[in-house]
Amino acid sequence: MSDKTRIRRVPERAVSERGTIDAILDEGLVCHAAYVTQDRPVVIPTLYVRDGDRVLIHGSNTMGLARAVRAGSPLSVAVTHMDGIVVARSAFNSSANYRSVVIHGHGRILDKGEKATAFDLIVEKLIPGRLADLRPSTASEISQTSIIELMLDEVSAKVRSGGPEDEPEDLDEEVWAGVVPMKTVVGEPIPDPDLRPGIPVPDYLRPYRR
Amino acid sequence: MSDKTRIRRVPERAVSERGTIDAILDEGLVCHAAYVTQDRPVVIPTLYVRDGDRVLIHGSNTMGLARAVRAGSPLSVAVTHMDGIVVARSAFNSSANYRSVVIHGHGRILDKGEKATAFDLIVEKLIPGRLADLRPSTASEISQTSIIELMLDEVSAKVRSGGPEDEPEDLDEEVWAGVVPMKTVVGEPIPDPDLRPGIPVPDYLRPYRR
Repeated sequence: MSDKTRIRRVPERAVSERGTIDAILDEGLVCHAAYVTQDRPVVIPTLYVRDGDRVLIHGSNTMGLARAVRAGSPLSVAVTHMDGIVVARSAFNSSANYRSVVIHGHGRILDKGEKATAFDLIVEKLIPGRLADLRPSTASEISQTSIIELMLDEVSAKVRSGGPEDEPEDLDEEVWAGVVPMKTVVGEPIPDPDLRPGIPVPDYLRPYRR
Repeated sequence: MSDKTRIRRVPERAVSERGTIDAILDEGLVCHAAYVTQDRPVVIPTLYVRDGDRVLIHGSNTMGLARAVRAGSPLSVAVTHMDGIVVARSAFNSSANYRSVVIHGHGRILDKGEKATAFDLIVEKLIPGRLADLRPSTASEISQTSIIELMLDEVSAKVRSGGPEDEPEDLDEEVWAGVVPMKTVVGEPIPDPDLRPGIPVPDYLRPYRR
């Protein structure tokens, strides 16, 4: 991951186009959210969903995050996908293919009236199609959840793709070069031991079945 | 990802044991490093390696990170692995299985004499076995790289594993429940278009061949 600009190729680039940004955000499940408390940064992983021009960040394991937002801390939130290992002809040009988005801004804690819908969006992002099968969340459950809204006002992406960008003089090196692609895959659903007999894996989990 | 403590099961837990922490760090390639500049947090993805009691963080695309460390900003660095989607019987208990480590502290910019070795460690982490095939890095390449050392003094892990932890009254819901496992896989190496004929994929990339 380097930001050197090359004459030969420029495989890493900054992207401000919303279509690309939205696609990167929509592909991810986990973001890394950073806030400041007592002049120190804290970064934590948590679940999120993009909803139009905002992201909704799940805050229940991250009371520190919600507290910091309430105290006025700005946020920095990153979503990153690793797409491959760039096997270059030098250590210096060895790199990774990736897509990442970083959002900056002040979050807003959703109020009681907004939270139920936002929480549903997060669950539906995690398991598309799931909500229709579930009982509604209770008021107590909603109250135990905190959700932070962050607008996509100050947002940018970085993308590196393609093969190694070697120095011209390294092209004669007697060494293999290329890319090892990486991706995240899902396996066969594993039933809960307490699952009542006769309940099949639902259709909306079928994309996950190989 | 919730930190509720349950009577029935406690699938999410904080871990301070170094063996677990080291294993999580050693499995990852990308960390999310957060720093503070002008009272604002900034989080960025970058490559790293654990080396004993420290992590070495690659800083070349992240001049802001190196600058912030030089200016005295503390750091917060997270490494997260998503292991699965927890398909619970309620939206509230829907969750993710994951392992994450967060490190806090003040980084140190490695000096010229230390950088070459540290840089090699990062490359060898990215592509184990690779260094033996590569020419040594030049002084100019080393000088263009910045590497930040962060000691594992203030470090902790969180791990969530296992099935859904549903409310007892939800176990009668007529709905599938369980876990959809996730993992990162690597594909078949893709040769660089400029690769000279007759150079085979090296042995150390063989684990990546299915």
